[in-house]
Parts: sequence; structure tokens; C-alpha cells
Amino acid sequence: MTDSGQAAARTLRVGMVGHGFMGAAHSHAWRNAHRFFELPATPQLTAVAGRDAQRVAEAAERQGWLSTETDWRRLVERDDIDLIDICTPGDTHREIALAALEAGKHVLCEKPLANTVAEAEEMADAARRASERGQIAMCGFTYRRVPAVSLARRFVDEGRLGEIRHVRAQYLQDWLSDANAPLTWRLDKSRAGSGSLGDIGAHIIDMAQWVAGSRIEGLSAVLRTFVTERPVGGEFVGLGGAGSADGPKGPVSVDDAAAFTARFAGGALGVFEATRFALGRKNSLRLEVNGSLGSVAFDFEDMNSLQYYDGADDAEAQGFRRIIVTEAVHPYTGNWWPSGHGLGYEHSFTHQVADLVRAIGAGAQPHPSFDDALQVQRVLAAVEASAADRAAWHEVQG
Amino acid sequence: MTDSGQAAARTLRVGMVGHGFMGAAHSHAWRNAHRFFELPATPQLTAVAGRDAQRVAEAAERQGWLSTETDWRRLVERDDIDLIDICTPGDTHREIALAALEAGKHVLCEKPLANTVAEAEEMADAARRASERGQIAMCGFTYRRVPAVSLARRFVDEGRLGEIRHVRAQYLQDWLSDANAPLTWRLDKSRAGSGSLGDIGAHIIDMAQWVAGSRIEGLSAVLRTFVTERPVGGEFVGLGGAGSADGPKGPVSVDDAAAFTARFAGGALGVFEATRFALGRKNSLRLEVNGSLGSVAFDFEDMNSLQYYDGADDAEAQGFRRIIVTEAVHPYTGNWWPSGHGLGYEHSFTHQVADLVRAIGAGAQPHPSFDDALQVQRVLAAVEASAADRAAWHEVQG
Amino acid sequence: MTDSGQAAARTLRVGMVGHGFMGAAHSHAWRNAHRFFELPATPQLTAVAGRDAQRVAEAAERQGWLSTETDWRRLVERDDIDLIDICTPGDTHREIALAALEAGKHVLCEKPLANTVAEAEEMADAARRASERGQIAMCGFTYRRVPAVSLARRFVDEGRLGEIRHVRAQYLQDWLSDANAPLTWRLDKSRAGSGSLGDIGAHIIDMAQWVAGSRIEGLSAVLRTFVTERPVGGEFVGLGGAGSADGPKGPVSVDDAAAFTARFAGGALGVFEATRFALGRKNSLRLEVNGSLGSVAFDFEDMNSLQYYDGADDAEAQGFRRIIVTEAVHPYTGNWWPSGHGLGYEHSFTHQVADLVRAIGAGAQPHPSFDDALQVQRVLAAVEASAADRAAWHEVQG
Amino acid sequence: MTDSGQAAARTLRVGMVGHGFMGAAHSHAWRNAHRFFELPATPQLTAVAGRDAQRVAEAAERQGWLSTETDWRRLVERDDIDLIDICTPGDTHREIALAALEAGKHVLCEKPLANTVAEAEEMADAARRASERGQIAMCGFTYRRVPAVSLARRFVDEGRLGEIRHVRAQYLQDWLSDANAPLTWRLDKSRAGSGSLGDIGAHIIDMAQWVAGSRIEGLSAVLRTFVTERPVGGEFVGLGGAGSADGPKGPVSVDDAAAFTARFAGGALGVFEATRFALGRKNSLRLEVNGSLGSVAFDFEDMNSLQYYDGADDAEAQGFRRIIVTEAVHPYTGNWWPSGHGLGYEHSFTHQVADLVRAIGAGAQPHPSFDDALQVQRVLAAVEASAADRAAWHEVQG
Repeated sequence: MTDSGQAAARTLRVGMVGHGFMGAAHSHAWRNAHRFFELPATPQLTAVAGRDAQRVAEAAERQGWLSTETDWRRLVERDDIDLIDICTPGDTHREIALAALEAGKHVLCEKPLANTVAEAEEMADAARRASERGQIAMCGFTYRRVPAVSLARRFVDEGRLGEIRHVRAQYLQDWLSDANAPLTWRLDKSRAGSGSLGDIGAHIIDMAQWVAGSRIEGLSAVLRTFVTERPVGGEFVGLGGAGSADGPKGPVSVDDAAAFTARFAGGALGVFEATRFALGRKNSLRLEVNGSLGSVAFDFEDMNSLQYYDGADDAEAQGFRRIIVTEAVHPYTGNWWPSGHGLGYEHSFTHQVADLVRAIGAGAQPHPSFDDALQVQRVLAAVEASAADRAAWHEVQG
Repeated sequence: MTDSGQAAARTLRVGMVGHGFMGAAHSHAWRNAHRFFELPATPQLTAVAGRDAQRVAEAAERQGWLSTETDWRRLVERDDIDLIDICTPGDTHREIALAALEAGKHVLCEKPLANTVAEAEEMADAARRASERGQIAMCGFTYRRVPAVSLARRFVDEGRLGEIRHVRAQYLQDWLSDANAPLTWRLDKSRAGSGSLGDIGAHIIDMAQWVAGSRIEGLSAVLRTFVTERPVGGEFVGLGGAGSADGPKGPVSVDDAAAFTARFAGGALGVFEATRFALGRKNSLRLEVNGSLGSVAFDFEDMNSLQYYDGADDAEAQGFRRIIVTEAVHPYTGNWWPSGHGLGYEHSFTHQVADLVRAIGAGAQPHPSFDDALQVQRVLAAVEASAADRAAWHEVQG
Repeated sequence: MTDSGQAAARTLRVGMVGHGFMGAAHSHAWRNAHRFFELPATPQLTAVAGRDAQRVAEAAERQGWLSTETDWRRLVERDDIDLIDICTPGDTHREIALAALEAGKHVLCEKPLANTVAEAEEMADAARRASERGQIAMCGFTYRRVPAVSLARRFVDEGRLGEIRHVRAQYLQDWLSDANAPLTWRLDKSRAGSGSLGDIGAHIIDMAQWVAGSRIEGLSAVLRTFVTERPVGGEFVGLGGAGSADGPKGPVSVDDAAAFTARFAGGALGVFEATRFALGRKNSLRLEVNGSLGSVAFDFEDMNSLQYYDGADDAEAQGFRRIIVTEAVHPYTGNWWPSGHGLGYEHSFTHQVADLVRAIGAGAQPHPSFDDALQVQRVLAAVEASAADRAAWHEVQG
Repeated sequence: MTDSGQAAARTLRVGMVGHGFMGAAHSHAWRNAHRFFELPATPQLTAVAGRDAQRVAEAAERQGWLSTETDWRRLVERDDIDLIDICTPGDTHREIALAALEAGKHVLCEKPLANTVAEAEEMADAARRASERGQIAMCGFTYRRVPAVSLARRFVDEGRLGEIRHVRAQYLQDWLSDANAPLTWRLDKSRAGSGSLGDIGAHIIDMAQWVAGSRIEGLSAVLRTFVTERPVGGEFVGLGGAGSADGPKGPVSVDDAAAFTARFAGGALGVFEATRFALGRKNSLRLEVNGSLGSVAFDFEDMNSLQYYDGADDAEAQGFRRIIVTEAVHPYTGNWWPSGHGLGYEHSFTHQVADLVRAIGAGAQPHPSFDDALQVQRVLAAVEASAADRAAWHEVQG
């Protein structure tokens, strides 16, 4: 923390940039983490920044922030802020993060870390330098902290899976399946960087590598845009919304779907698919890992369970176990409710805050670091490079 | 509200009695409901009461309560409290609720409403009288407010199920399956009133009647205690815990399991089962309702979905639909996250607070009322009477 | 076998009475069992009996029977028949079985064994006497021989479940859910004996007792008829069919649904439900058994799998396993296809034939015997007695 | 048929080459199809050919074939054979099929049609010429005839899915997961042609194209061999078996796993994966198709159901339906048992025989033709070409 007083040492003063969907999820986590987890410092929702004064004031009121700024630069300059939490679109991450690190703040940055590898490299470099000054930087790949996903990683660490042969990961949504869903910033390459690839593909890339404990070293990819223009000016409802089929249209400049095969450093064969056109799949983030000794499978549509197959079970009694990941022995869940009481989407943000605050207290780097996130960015870049090169195999750089 | 000032009118000052598992869940709801739901008043966590000064102070700190009391009577007397939230074991509900209603407070009382019908009747009478003075009383059958359960009720209201023929409900837990799990207050009839029957059986009775829109009018029941004595003095861990097989033991004075067949007023045949001995079932609260036109099925182990069968679907395409109950059109979920992002156990408590605060604002009785909860108590009494009478059919009184 | 010649000793000459749904299933089994199982004798489909000469001739042609009879008495008298297979409605079982046993034939009788306990007792007595003459009698509770159900029983035998506390069994169908489904013999008490109780309830009673390895000793029951009269003369389509809402109607004289709670000799609490009104459930025969060490669960709608929970698994890795019961180590399945290739409904009939022919070859009584089936009949009688006596507890006689 | 007499016209005389796993499945279908389906001719199991006289005699006895041959050429020459059924490894298909077609026989050939495109082209040419002489040739992609898969295709034909955007198909097995599983002919490229690709990948390629009603026109692929040498001389048990870790080893010359992304002619994005190393997946053949109006999903591990999502359902009631594909209105199932009684693996072979015999009777080409199978072979070749070319995009030839 930037302040060394003992009282202040027991408070972590947070400034958040952006207050949309991610801002709400982060706010909830900052407000509640210390209610369920023993933390070395209590987060204070010190200030939130947004460009529109009225909207940021409403968000502050709604989400419990003590003050507001209409310029993120002002937020970064404030002395009473220990940590900057970046919840804006990807095209702004680099500038904010660099300024915050320069200002001596800890940083939590939403994923993807940036829209390009060059930006991400600059950010990771800055984070590495800041680390030497005791600052912590972390990227918000929250699905790692869904208890069932954390348990999958623990099983890999424990050797329960043996040598990993297969990793298959899918992130299936359907909110663009309607060809008249409106054009939003998420479909604009200059804002979002990419489409399904960076938005949801990044999640499964990070999650798969983390659970498998191994990085993707090469891949062959295709990108696809099914609907090339969409209504503009339509009201945005949730992630989807309803546009007008008759009004003016604008170009979709990102991918609707991405798919690639990959090779992990450990030798595993990966198959990845991310799409917003899988009609009926609302948020189906799936991961299956098959090893020589065991397998795990996860689907976010049943997020409180993990499928696990133990090849050492008696032959007559082998089968995938549906582990209800709500027990005191499971990651994170003992801090919440008694056995069998499931968690929801936003809990992984609370876990992220808990781990981050503890890491700050301990002066240790939490995962995922900016370097981890940079590597994901490199995988995204390799996907785009391969897709632009007739799907030919591309090594992941770095 | 007891205070008529405009500022106060926009705050609902809450005093909570008890701060265990239920206290934590309620606190979370009081802290967060207004962050996600538009409410006519913002809850203030004014004071929490508990007998042990140190433990209540720790709970207040942890859960965000502004002050503490070591005697619930003092809490009830305070002028700066608008609502008393009762989170203590069932044997104390009557006395606290009566005093709170007498003192002009709104009341939220955990389920079961009381340990006996006589107590519940007294409480319901008091609530009815208080209602005439503008006070609201509500009982905490929170499973009604799991979105999938609320959706099931909506489907019944919309006529999607037609004439209801079957209701089958199970609440299966396993935390007493180990014969050496220790003796806790939940196994002491003088404290808990009953065992699985009142603890979890009450939940499925209330939920089934509410979803079906019809009350149980008669039943035939059995109760069973599989393990008649258990270790005393064992450390309590979660709901279960580990006792010592070799130490002293004390008698279990409640049922381990309850099962009954029932007739609903509308003619449906009910089959109910509640147990803490269903090894492997952590918190499997299941409900299935079959009507002449459609069916619904729910399992809390997959709480963000509802199974629905529409008998009017094309013959070749009929099947139970797994509705992921996370869309903006579904009950409560539009206030949380975008499509496909599931909720957890504690969200139903937040929904309960939202509905209660809105009802207080509107001066209207929310469900379930103390009368609703009294009726559940009468079903519980009929279960015990039938079980004591060779399972012979008993009408539900009242 | 009745014939002692060596050649004949290698053939088992079968005469079947009845050629409807069950007749087709039995014929398939007689034709194919020796293709997949090593048998001491090869079944010969010697003759089939039916009242209508043309229909029985067509059935013989279709199902591969070498000759026909229009009077079952003639079939029983034939010297070239070793075994009588009874596939007619329950009201005819007693007379045919007694005659067949008297004539020195082995007997396979469809379930339920009879329509009354008195009939079943007479049949079991005769079977016991015939047993002394080397004749075998078996009742067709085929669900025991679904591999997953056989595996469940094996797990109980191996002690994997420990002390059994809960047995819950449901048999849910929906073919009477439409109030205009026509009146058939299955709804006529004089023909069928009872409704859902004897038709499908008998199956779950037998299966539950067999898997649990323990008999029901007392119970409390309700029976319900939702639709009391139905169109007559409607064309029968499958089990359901479509009647006319406007034509003449006749009375339904059997139960539409049956439910009861029970106590097993070993102390387990049973909950049973059988119905033809569970809209959307086509043939959902479900069984769950919870013991002190493990649990199993089965649903015929996913018939090639068994759910199994092992309480001794590592705490972090406990969960119900979905065992795909298609491996060489599983009951019966090694005789069919390689790993992972599921079986269907009729395979349990083939297993029944295989076990029966082997038992005849070995001169040993296969399960279920007529005594086993008589005991099921006594449970059915207790259900009817309790239901007629305000659901009061009734002991199972015998 | 080759014989024009009326009596012979009512019999289809079959000669089968090979009598292993596939031979057993085909035999069962030939024996039983006319018992459940109305056919224009009754199959006769006239003769079976195998190289070892004793083994083929045993197989004939076991499976019900009337005579045997030890040279398939002799079988093809016999005048009393109307159809040659080829159940041998892929390296023999071409020679047998060409001879059979030349001899005027109808031909049913197991998949894959051949081991190379050149062979398959020769076979398809011969089949086309034979077709002009009234001969029928069909390839055994039996998974098309699993009722749930046939229903998926029907849904596509009915327009229920709209424009198809995604096809994802997986065929996951685990019988090579053990590095000591023995070397069998299936791992020898000269016999099997390829590994998982041709054995199980061919199935999902054919099924996906057929269900989607669209062909793969280009793809990018990877192949992987995880275990490059295995014990020789080990006893073969089922598909897997147990070799010795200490004995001599031989090289695995085929792929253990194959994965590719693809473009369908209609524009859909395909993702395919086939492997024998997915520990815990016994025979998990999965297909999901997402269209603009609806989606379907299938998993052979639950083969009697089809998941179907109808985008036109009411917003609050949308969800994947689990259709139990056992009703009279579903493909094939009305010929078997009443509602809710599931089928097994071998039934699709019976359906194949039924469709083939009807097609022969009608003089019409059944699907899949040798041309259909040739196209699958071209996809397999494109997979191998792409995999050998750094996964670069390859068009499917032809």
C-alpha cells in the first residue's frame, strides 16, 4: 500500500474506472469480500471514475462508492487511492494501467489485458518494474476462481490426472444468433480488439492453460463472421438487445466465432471454440481435460459441480463423479455457506478480491499476473495470425 | 415504518436477533438488496443482538451492523429500529415476535414459524392485529424466491400445468449419515421442535403448496430415527461435524427422516420425504409437479434451472426443457447479471429482503405471511399426529 | 426337461401363451439368447397359443414360432413342449400355471404372478411341489436383469452400501394423462387385478426389495383414480391411444396412481410411487438406495448407467459416479458388445431366458421364484388393505 | 435380386464376409429385422465366409448362418447369394466389393468404405455402374439410424434449425489410454488405413454431414499419436485388452487422435475431434448443431434421447428439451416397443437392414451410397493432407 500508517494499512483504498457490467461485479466484490474472508486490509470503495458526471454519480450511489471522478487521470493522481481497478473496454487498458503503475498504485485490470500484444507487452513490462517497488498487478480472469475450476486445477496439481493428453474448451453463447441484434461496441474492432475471440475465447484460453498447468505453444485457427452488418442505434438490452431490421446498418468488424486446434507445451492436444451463435447456450463455458490417470469436466451452466473420473477406481465402479463443489474442503466454499449451498456468478469476483488483497498484504504476486495475461494475448495474436494465413500452424510467440 | 420523517422514510432500520448461519445470510441480504433492486427504503443494519457480548461484537464487525445488544428485549425496545429480523432457533420465535409486534415493529421471522401450532397461532393472531396498524410480518421460507421456483409458480399461475395431479417433493441431506456426527441443538426436541421434519421438511411443504397453489388437507406419515444416541461435546463443524465414537453419548430426541403421502385441496396426490441420511445428497431439495397440460421439476443441486414439459409441443418434439433461469424475463434475475450468469444460495435471501422492503413501502402483505407459515405448522403437526397413530390418515386442522 | 434323449437335452422346447407386447418381447429373447450366451440347451420356439386362429398364426409367422394352438390347454398337453411361457393378463395366470406344472412343464410366468394373494399362494404351492420333481418355475420381473440394476444389487451384496437406510422407488408413466385415453383391459379390475399398482408398482416393489436384499414388512398406502370414466371402443394405440371425448364412456375400476411408505425388514424407510399420470415421464422407473457407506440411483430413462456414491472417496473428490454399465466386468454386458455400446429394453428379457435356461440345465431355482413373486403379491395386497383403511399401517402377511 | 422367381423374390439370400464384432452385429440384424419391420423380402443367412474353417464354422453356428466358406471369392461366386455383406477390415473392402458387384450381387460394406480415396473411387464407380443393372450398394454408417440421430436430421429437413451456423462433433473413447494396451490390427496403418480418424472420425464426419444436410468443403487438421509403440502378442480383450509392459513392443503406425476445423458448403463452422485417449469416455459420440432458429445435441452415452432447442418458444420457457426418442411418432421406434422403452446399440444395424431390404425391393438407392461414403473418404484424405501440411487449409477434393 502507498500509505504506511497502521490504520491505513488495514484499509485498502480502491479507485475503479468504469461502472458497467464489470463495474457492478467488481463493486459487489469490493463491498463484500471482507465479510466472508479474513483479509489483511479492508477494501474501501473510495472513488469511481466515469466520463458522464450524472451516470457516474448514480453508479457511485448504487454501488456504494464514496466519491466520483469524471476523468480517470484524476483518479490515478489521488493520494487517497491505493489500487486502481480497470473495468473499461480493452482499448483503454494500456493507458490507464501504465499511469496507475507509474503513480505507484496496485492495479487490477479486466481481461483481456489489452487489444494488442504490443500494448500487453508494455503493460507487463511496467508491471514487472512496479513489482520491484512492491506494487501488485493482476488481470481479471475470474473463471479461475469458480470453486469447481479451482478444484480441477488442484486435481492436476495433486497428480490425479497424470500426463495430460486432451484439453477441449468451449465458450458458447447465443446473444448474436438473432441477425437483428444491434451493433454495439463489442462488435467494433477499434474498441473491443476482437469479437468472441477476445471476449470469451480469452477466458477459455486462460482457464484451460491454468487448469492444465501448461501453455499453448502452437495452433491452427479459423475465425468466422456470420452476420456482417447489423442495425445501429438499437437499444442495448443486456448483452443482446433488439435492433430494428428496417433501420440503418453498420459493419460488424470482429469475429462472431473462433475455433482452433492447439498443442500444449506438455504435449496435450487442445481443441477450442468460442461463439456467440450457439443458439440455446446462454453462457456455456466448458472445459474437459483427459489425462493418463484421470479426467475432469466442467460446464458453467452447472457451475457448482465438477465432473471427475478416476481411472484407479474399481473396474466395475468407474464413472465420472459429479462432485458438488460446495464443501468445506473445496476451494473458497468453506468461507460461504454449509455443505450443498451453491454459489453464483459473482462469487468468483469476490474470491479474486480476497486473493488480491491477501497478496498485497503478503507482498506476493497473485495469479494471473500481467505476464500471464500477456501470454494469453499472444495466443490470441497467434489465432488471428493463423486465421489470416489459411489456418496454417503458428507458434505462439514469446 | 415507525418514524414518519422523510429522511427516515427512505431508510429501513433493521435489528436482527441471532447471528449464526441464518444471521450471516440475512446480513448479506440487508447489506446488498438495494444495490440490485429499486427499493422504497434503504435498509440500515442498525443493531444485532446476541447473548455473548464478544461474539455479537465480532459478528457485528464481520457482518456490518452498526451496534449490538446482548438482550433481544433491549433491541425490541429501541426507538431507532423499524424491523426485527428473527434468526434464532424455533423455541424463541414466539416470544420475540410477539414483543416486536407489540412494540410496533415490522417482523421477519425465520422458518419454521414456531415449534408448535399453539405458538404459531398466537403469532399469526398477533400479526393479523398488527397488520391493522400497518405492520408487516413475514416468514422466511426463502426457497420460494429461488428464481427457478418462482418461475415454476408463475407457470402454474399462467395455467401451463392445467389440473394438477401429482406433487412429489424431497429434501435430501446426508450430514447425519455418519453415526458419530455429534449431538447438536438441532437434534434436541426442546430446542428444535423436530428434526428433519421442521428443519427441511417445512421447506418442501411450503414450497410445494406455494408452487402448486393448493394446500395439503390430509396426510399419512411416518417418522424415523436411525441413530438414537450420539456423541456429546463434539466440535460442531458446519452442519455436520465429527464427534468421538468413544466419548459419552446423549439421546437424539427428534426424527432423522420424515415421509408422508398427502392430498391437496385441489385433488393432487402428494408424496414428501425429508432426511439427513441420504448419503451423497448434500442439499438436494427436489420438487416435481405433474398437471394435465404440463409438468415442472426442480432440484436445488442444479438451482439455476427449471425442467418444464409442455404437453402441447409437437408430438415428435416433446421433452422436458432445461430452462436456464437466468434471463431478463425470469423472476428476479434481470436485476443481477446478463443472460446465463447463475445465482447462488444467498440470492433468495436478497430477493426476500427486496420483496419485504417493497411490501413495507406499499403497505401490502408480502408472502408468506404468518398465516401461511401457521398453515405449514399445522401440516407439521398433522405429520406428527399421523406418525404417532400408525400412519393413519389425519386431516390438517384449521 | 421332460425328454431325456441327449439331442433333446440340448434343445428346450417352448410353448408360449399370449402374443401381445409381452409375447413379442419373450419371442425375441427365445430366438436370440443362445446367440449371445452359452446355454446348456438351445431354445426352440415350438408353439404359441392364442384364441384367434388368424391372429395367432400371424404372430407365429412374425415371431418365428413353429406351430400354433388356439387353446392353451392343448399347448399344455403337448408332449413336445418342455416349458410353458405365460404372457397373458393376470386373471389367467393361475389356471395356466397350475395346469402346466401339473403336466410336468417348466413355467415362466409374466408378472404380476396373479391378481390375488390366494391365487398366488396356490401357484407358489404348486411350484414348490413341482420343484421336487425337478421342474423350474420363474416369474418375469425382468427389470432385475437390466445390467445397471443387477450391478446395484451386486454393490449391495459386496457391502458397498453398508446398512441401508432409505429406499425410494418411483415408476412414472403418462399414457393416461389424457382424460380421453380409451378404456382398455388394463383399466378393468376383473382383468388386470389393479391399475398402476399391479402393472408398474409391482415392478418397483420387486426391484427395490431385490436390490436392497430385504423385504417390506409393513406399509401405509394411498390409491387414487383421477379419471373415473373413459371412452369405450376407442382404438388402442400402443399403451395409450386416443379415444373420443363425445362417445360413450365406461367406468375405470382400477387405480391411476399408488403411493406408500414402507418399512423394510432391515430397518430401511421406503417411499414408493407408481402412476400413469406423470405427464412427460414416459417410462421413468427410478430407484435410489442410501446406505451408511454408499448410495446407488437408477433411472430407466437412462438405462445404461448407474449412479453410485462411495462415502469412502477422498472428501474433496466425493460425488455420484455415473457408471456406464456396458463393460465386460458388468453383469450380462460382456456377452454383447464392446465397451460403451448400450443395451435396450428387450435385453433384460434375453438375460431372463439365459438365466432360466441355465437354471434348468443346472437343476437350480433361478430368481425370482414363485415364492418371491407371491411375496410381492402380498405387498400389493397390503397396499390395497391399507388404502382401504385410511392409510393405516398394515403388516405384510406371510 | 438376382433370382426372379416369386418365392425367391420373397427371400433375400445373404452372404457375409467376416465374423468379428461387426459380423455379430450384422448377423443379429439379418436374423431379426423382418420380425419388427414389414419387409418386401425375408433375409436368409445363407452363408458366412472366414479364412479359418473352424472359426467360421463356430461363428456360423453361433450366429445362425446356414453354410460357410473359407474363401470370400467362393462366396461371391455362389448362385444362391443375392447380397454380399462386407464386415472385414478396410484393406479388403475394395477387392471384395468389386468382385461382388461384378458378380451381380447387392453389396453392404462396412465403413470406412476403403483405406484410400483411390480405392473408394473405384468402388463408387463400380457401384454406379452396377446401379444401372439394378444392384444396390450401401455403406454401413449405422449411426445415422440411431432414432435420435434420424430425428435430428428430420428436424433439419423440417426447417426447425433454420440456417446452420455451427456443427461440433466428437467421438471420444478411452481404450488406448493405457500405454500398455496391446498392438492390434487397428493400430497398423496397412490394415486399418488410419487410427481414430478412419475408425471413429469417419462416423462423426458422416453423421455430421448427413444431419446438417451439407458437406464439408475445406478443413484444417491435426493428427496425434501419444503412444508410439505398444506391446505385441498381448491377448486382445474387447477393443482394449491388456498387454505386458515388459515384453517386446511394436510401432503404432496410426493416429491416436484427430482434430480439425471445417467449413461446410452451407457456411457452417465445424469442429471435429476423434480420440481413443479420452479417459472415462467409453463411447461418447456427440453431435451438436446450432442454427438460426433451433439447435440439436446428441450424445451416444444417452442414445435414446435428443436435445432440442426451439428458439421460437416463449422467452420465459426456452430451454433444451430432452426428447426421449422412443415414441411411435419417432423414426424407427414405433416398430419396437411401447412409449418409453429404449433401444440399444445394435438396433441401428437392424434399421440399416430394414432400409436396405426395402430399398432393394423398391429398386431405389438407400443412403448412404458408395458415393456418400467416397465423399467421407475424401474428407479423411483432406484431414491427412492438412495434418501433413502444418494444418494448412485444404479443400476437400471431388
